[in-house]
Amino acid sequence: MDPVIAIVGSGAVGCYYGGRLAQHGQNVHFLFRSMYDAVHSRGLVVQSLDGNFSIPPDRLHAYHDPRQMPKADLIIVALKTTSNDQYHSLIRPLLKEQTLILTIQNGLGNEDQLAELFGEKRILGGLAFVCINRMEDGSIRHFDHGKISLAEFVGPPQARTEQIAKMFADCQVRCELLDDLRYARWEKLIWNVPFNGLGAVLDKTTDQLIATNEGQAIVRTLMAEIIAVAASLGISFPPEIIDQKIEHTLSMGAYRTSMQIDRQQHRPLEVESILGRPLEIARRKNITTPYLEMLYRVSTLV
Amino acid sequence: MDPVIAIVGSGAVGCYYGGRLAQHGQNVHFLFRSMYDAVHSRGLVVQSLDGNFSIPPDRLHAYHDPRQMPKADLIIVALKTTSNDQYHSLIRPLLKEQTLILTIQNGLGNEDQLAELFGEKRILGGLAFVCINRMEDGSIRHFDHGKISLAEFVGPPQARTEQIAKMFADCQVRCELLDDLRYARWEKLIWNVPFNGLGAVLDKTTDQLIATNEGQAIVRTLMAEIIAVAASLGISFPPEIIDQKIEHTLSMGAYRTSMQIDRQQHRPLEVESILGRPLEIARRKNITTPYLEMLYRVSTLV
Repeated sequence: MDPVIAIVGSGAVGCYYGGRLAQHGQNVHFLFRSMYDAVHSRGLVVQSLDGNFSIPPDRLHAYHDPRQMPKADLIIVALKTTSNDQYHSLIRPLLKEQTLILTIQNGLGNEDQLAELFGEKRILGGLAFVCINRMEDGSIRHFDHGKISLAEFVGPPQARTEQIAKMFADCQVRCELLDDLRYARWEKLIWNVPFNGLGAVLDKTTDQLIATNEGQAIVRTLMAEIIAVAASLGISFPPEIIDQKIEHTLSMGAYRTSMQIDRQQHRPLEVESILGRPLEIARRKNITTPYLEMLYRVSTLV
Repeated sequence: MDPVIAIVGSGAVGCYYGGRLAQHGQNVHFLFRSMYDAVHSRGLVVQSLDGNFSIPPDRLHAYHDPRQMPKADLIIVALKTTSNDQYHSLIRPLLKEQTLILTIQNGLGNEDQLAELFGEKRILGGLAFVCINRMEDGSIRHFDHGKISLAEFVGPPQARTEQIAKMFADCQVRCELLDDLRYARWEKLIWNVPFNGLGAVLDKTTDQLIATNEGQAIVRTLMAEIIAVAASLGISFPPEIIDQKIEHTLSMGAYRTSMQIDRQQHRPLEVESILGRPLEIARRKNITTPYLEMLYRVSTLV
């Protein structure tokens, strides 16, 4: 029998990846919250640079209560991290002995929180490198990238990790395996802290933030602070990574980060997982990170 | 004969103080720029908590070219500091041997720049503590405070300083004399840096900035940095001043600083005189001011 896959947190990212899996025949069950009414009548509509697709209402397994969903073999968590306090109520009803939980959420600390609640052996982490938005009509627009980087929370990839990667690949989602989830999380933070943080606080796109020398100086200082915090945990990055990330971002053009979009749409910001956690670690390790600290504090005012 | 008073930079602040002087019979000549057409047809209309008044077009000495104005005995400079590069062209035509120049602009460095151009002996500095806006119809609304603190740029008050203070007092403007202009400028900066700077960058009123602990922490850190820079110049403030300024600001309610208003109206921000000058001094004196630095850099992106 096909494994049961549950998507918890069916915003743009959850809908896209869950939708790809469903499109290619996987047995996917979506837990919707704010979008439930829209998908219930219209189904899931995705415009994607990798090919448009839709799942009509009569073929979409849509729920708004996890207690009405089948127990899952794999749960993909794509909640905004601002809802992590609902992990227990949303995920517990879906669990059986062998259920795996893959979080593809942003920032730091999600795997740790899941491991604490549900046991570390079943936890996997994924980084979704994707540019994706929910449109006003409820449809999903996927307009760049799409790769998932996948790792075990504890230890190197296992057979099960490879199976999940293969499943994504068979469903048109590029997927790579990582040996070290922490390295990847911190590398993503080096970019996310300045661009999500400043993007939200200033309501600026990535290109606007680095259009001037002063803007680049802010971004570079924040990146250097994150690298210093990572180093205090034994995770080292070469100093050139800052130049590389600036170069890459310059090549991206005008990009609105998810946190800027959240701000524009008056949704809660993922401040704690993207800014708060690294700041907490910096303080514990006595690493001075004044720019990160000021950015964190300012982000609570927005 | 009555002394000729020229108002250079007739925005809300220049109009208000120049208007009070004219209302009470002084011989005031206004150099208008963006507001010229409006006042030429409607005159100067001021709503003030100290009493409304207006000066009709036929009694208002309004100019838009300083070369058409009479030479002045006293020039009151109320330009936005973003126009300080026009000091020479706007002020030079008004000068005679004995002309005094009083700048009531915001921030640091205005007296220094005027002294360099026109000689330090004729320069006075004033701090305008006033809440004043220009309305959309071109009228001026004065809704709180109004005092001017007046000092010589070099040395203690002289007979001439006292004469100017008396003139203001006779024209319904409270005016106090200061022995030390620098102390007063830095004290005002302790407040202006956080509230003008953050207010503009975040588009927040003063009460919003200190409504949370994190917000207060940002304001307090910026104040402490400015106090440290002042100390490096031998200007010392008692540490309680931070608590006092927070308390006072809490009592003010929702106040939009001039820089927040400039941002909302898409006018240039007085970044250099309020944030850039103290940062320059901090760097020269090797005082670490990361919050000020980040705020300065961010303000250039807004």
